[in-house]
Amino acid sequence: MTPEEFRAAGHRLIDWIADYRARVDRFPVMAQTEPGAIKAQLPVSPPDQPESIDAIVADLDRVVVPGLSHWQHPQFFGYFPCNGSLASVLGDYVSTGLGVLGLAWQSSPALTEVEEVATDWLRQMLGLSAAWSGVIQDTASTSTLIALICARERATAFGLTRGGLQAEPRPLVVYTSAHSHSSVNKAALLAGFGRDNIRLIAHDASYAMRPDALAAAIDEDRRAGSLPCAVVATAGSTTSTAFDPLDAIGRIAAEHTLWFHVDAAMAGSAMILPECRHLWDGVERADTLVVNPHKWLGAAFDCTVYYLRDPEHLVRVMSTNPSYLQSSADGRVKNYRDWGIPLGRRFRALKLWFLIREQGVAKLQQRLRRDLDNAQWLAGEVRAARAWRLLAAVPLQTLCVRHEPDGLSGEALDRHTLAWVERVNRSGAAYLTPATLDGRWMVRVSIGAENTERTHVEALWRTMRHEAERP
Amino acid sequence: MTPEEFRAAGHRLIDWIADYRARVDRFPVMAQTEPGAIKAQLPVSPPDQPESIDAIVADLDRVVVPGLSHWQHPQFFGYFPCNGSLASVLGDYVSTGLGVLGLAWQSSPALTEVEEVATDWLRQMLGLSAAWSGVIQDTASTSTLIALICARERATAFGLTRGGLQAEPRPLVVYTSAHSHSSVNKAALLAGFGRDNIRLIAHDASYAMRPDALAAAIDEDRRAGSLPCAVVATAGSTTSTAFDPLDAIGRIAAEHTLWFHVDAAMAGSAMILPECRHLWDGVERADTLVVNPHKWLGAAFDCTVYYLRDPEHLVRVMSTNPSYLQSSADGRVKNYRDWGIPLGRRFRALKLWFLIREQGVAKLQQRLRRDLDNAQWLAGEVRAARAWRLLAAVPLQTLCVRHEPDGLSGEALDRHTLAWVERVNRSGAAYLTPATLDGRWMVRVSIGAENTERTHVEALWRTMRHEAERP
Repeated sequence: MTPEEFRAAGHRLIDWIADYRARVDRFPVMAQTEPGAIKAQLPVSPPDQPESIDAIVADLDRVVVPGLSHWQHPQFFGYFPCNGSLASVLGDYVSTGLGVLGLAWQSSPALTEVEEVATDWLRQMLGLSAAWSGVIQDTASTSTLIALICARERATAFGLTRGGLQAEPRPLVVYTSAHSHSSVNKAALLAGFGRDNIRLIAHDASYAMRPDALAAAIDEDRRAGSLPCAVVATAGSTTSTAFDPLDAIGRIAAEHTLWFHVDAAMAGSAMILPECRHLWDGVERADTLVVNPHKWLGAAFDCTVYYLRDPEHLVRVMSTNPSYLQSSADGRVKNYRDWGIPLGRRFRALKLWFLIREQGVAKLQQRLRRDLDNAQWLAGEVRAARAWRLLAAVPLQTLCVRHEPDGLSGEALDRHTLAWVERVNRSGAAYLTPATLDGRWMVRVSIGAENTERTHVEALWRTMRHEAERP
Repeated sequence: MTPEEFRAAGHRLIDWIADYRARVDRFPVMAQTEPGAIKAQLPVSPPDQPESIDAIVADLDRVVVPGLSHWQHPQFFGYFPCNGSLASVLGDYVSTGLGVLGLAWQSSPALTEVEEVATDWLRQMLGLSAAWSGVIQDTASTSTLIALICARERATAFGLTRGGLQAEPRPLVVYTSAHSHSSVNKAALLAGFGRDNIRLIAHDASYAMRPDALAAAIDEDRRAGSLPCAVVATAGSTTSTAFDPLDAIGRIAAEHTLWFHVDAAMAGSAMILPECRHLWDGVERADTLVVNPHKWLGAAFDCTVYYLRDPEHLVRVMSTNPSYLQSSADGRVKNYRDWGIPLGRRFRALKLWFLIREQGVAKLQQRLRRDLDNAQWLAGEVRAARAWRLLAAVPLQTLCVRHEPDGLSGEALDRHTLAWVERVNRSGAAYLTPATLDGRWMVRVSIGAENTERTHVEALWRTMRHEAERP
C-alpha cells in the first residue's frame, strides 16, 4: 500500500471509527453471537491475490462488529472501564504510523525519552515521590511477574547467575490475600514458586489483608525453615475494591526484608484525586507498584505503568547485552529493553502523552469525580430499595450488589443472581459481570466508561430492577 | 475528545502519517541527537489544562521526529526489517479505535475468532501442518519464556502445583547455541534455570549447532544426575542467519524427552516461500515455534505468532479462572488469556488480517523474493571487491561483511570497522548494525525494509565503500 493509498483508506477508516464511536450506544453491549459463528463466516485459507479495502471494510461491518462486546459503550459496566479515550487513540495512531522500534535508546531516542517524561508526569499526577522510576509494560499481569522475579533474585542474591532457583535450599514464600487478582497467583507460579509456597493471608470484614495474620504467617514460615520472599498487596481489589493496609504491610515487609509489590492496576487511576490518596497510605514503602492508565484513566490499551525504586536491580535481572545491541550511547541512556521481558518496544508513551496533554489533569480529575458521584448515587438507590443489598463498601466506582427476594438463599439465590444478570447481558441493554464474594454469586457494577453519564446509570438501575424483580 | 473532534484531528493525523511515509527517505536514517536532548525540550510537569491538537502536532514535528531513527526508511539496514506495512497499520488503527478487550472469548468474541483464523492462515502460508495452533504474543522474547516455562513444567510433572522448581532435586538443563538470540539466555534465567544450567552447544563452521555436541552434552548431564529439559534451536540466527539442523536436533530431543523450541523469529517469514523451506527441515518435530510477522513480513509491531502442538499443556500452565472471568461459553471456546502471560489482549489479529488480505500471499512472496535477490546482488559485489570480505553464507537477506585493508588485523581492524560503520550511521545516508563474529567486529547488512529497492542497495554499497575506503 502506498502512502497515497493509505491516505485515502485512512481517511475512510477515520470516518468509520468516528461513526462507530458516535453510535456505539446503539449496539447491544454484549456480543450476541455463538461460539464459532464468526470463524464460520471467514475463508478457511488466505487469499492469494490482493483484496480491496472495500471488501475488508465490508467484513468489518458484516462479521467483526456484530461479534464485539462494546467496551466503549456508555452501558458497559462489566469487568472494569477500559477507556480508549480518543486523544489517546490518536497518540497510538502516530506510534503505529511511524513504525519505529525501541531496542535500544539509539534505535529511536524519542521513544525512550518521551516514555521517561510521560511516566514521570503520571507519577506526579499520582502524588508519588521522585524516588520512583516508571516504565510502560503491556499489563499488570506481566508487571507482577517481573516484580516477583526481581523478588526471587534479591532473596537468592542473584541465584540466576549461578544455579538458579533450584540451588536455593530454603523454600521461598510469597504472601498475598485471597482477594488479590488472579494474576498474582499466576505470576508466582510462572516465576517458579510453586503453589505450596503461596500463602493466602486472612482478610478482615472489608476484604483487606490482615497485617497481624501476615506477620504470623511469616513467623511460622521462618520457624519452618522457609525464606519469606515477597508480599503482594492490593490497592483496590478486583471483586470489591478492598484496600490492603499498605502502611502496616510495608512495615512488616521492611522488618523481614520482603519484596513489597503493590497492585493498584485499576484503583491507581483514582490517585490523581488528592482526596483518594489516603486509601493507599504507605504506598511509598513499596519496592514496586503497578498502575494501569489503560483502565479508568483512558489510555488506549495496552499501557500499564510499572513503578520501581531500584532500577539497577531490575536491569541486573533483565539485562541482555549482545554485540548487535551495543551503542556508543550506552551508560548515558536508559535502554528500556533491560526494564522488562520483551526486547522490542512500541512507542507506547505517545498514547499516554496525547491523553494527558489533550485532556489536561483537571479534566481527567473532573471525569473521575463524576464517576465517583455516580457510584455513590447508585449505592444510595441500592441501599434504599427493598430486597436489594450492597455487599461491600464503595470507596471508588465499583459496587457489589445482590437482589435478595424473600425466601431465597444459598444455591437458589445463586441461580436467581446468575439468571437475572444473564438476562441483563443478553438483552443488550447493559453489560455486568457476576462474581463470587464469600462463596456466593453477586453482581459487580463497575462504573466509569468514558461516555457513562448519570442518565446511563439511572437507565442501568431500571434495567437491573426490571430483570431481577420481574415475577 | 468527542467523535467529531476525533474525526477532524484524525484526518489531519492521517495526512501527517501519509506525508511522513511519503518523505521518510529525506530524513537522516539514524537519529542525530544526543542523550537527554529530547527530554530537555519537554515540560517537566503535566499540563493542568487541555492543550490543542495543534500544539501536540507541532511538538511531533519539533521534538519527536528529529529524535527518531527511521525504521521505515529505504536505507534502513540495521538490526532487522521491522516493516509496518501501511495496510497492517490500518488494521491496527481499527483495533485501537474499537477499544475492545479480550479477557475471555465472551468479552469480544470476534477478537478471539479472527485471531484463530489469521494465525491459521499464516500457518498455511508457512507450510506448517494442521497440528499447530497459533496465538499472538508481543515478542519472541516473551514466547521463548513461555516455551521454557512450559518445558520446566513438563519436566517436573507440573511442579508449580506443588513445591515449584525448588522441589525438583535434579538440576534442569537447557541447551542452545552461542549463536541463539540473547532472549533465549534471558528467558532461561527468568524461568529460574540459572546460568550454570544453560549449555551453549558447539557450532560448526556455518555457526549452526552441532547435533553430536548436543547429544554428548545431554549424556554428560545425565551421567552427572541432571535432568535435560529443553533445547532451543534457531532457524536463522540474528548475527549470521545460521540455521540449526532442526531434524537432527528434533530426533535427539524426542529420544531424551526434551522440550524442543524453535526460534524462527526473523527467518520464519521466509517460509512463505516454498523454495526456502528446506532451511527449516524438521520443524514439525518441534513442540513450539515462534515466528515474527512484525519483522520482514510487514505486520505492524507488535505481532509475534507462537505456534504450539499441545494447547492443553499450555493452558494447564497458564490458566486462571477466577469467578469474574467465567462465562457460560467456557469449554466451547478458546480463552486466549490462558495462552500467555497477560490477561488483557488487544485485537492484534486485525493487523495481520489486514496485511494478508490487502497484499495477498503472492504479493508478499514477490516482495520477499525481491529482497533475497538484492541480498545476492550485494553479496556478489562484496565478493568481487578488493579488500572486502563476506564472513558467512547468505541464505536469506542478511550479509556479514568486513572491509579488510592490507595490513590491518586484530584490534586495529576492529577500530577500522567500528569507525567506518559509525561514519555511515552518522552521515544519515544509511543505518547498519555492527556485531561480533568469531570475536571480531564486522557489519551486518539486513536488507528487507519494505521500501528498499535495488537502487537503494546500490546506493548503500557506494556509501559503504566511500566511508570504509577513504584514506
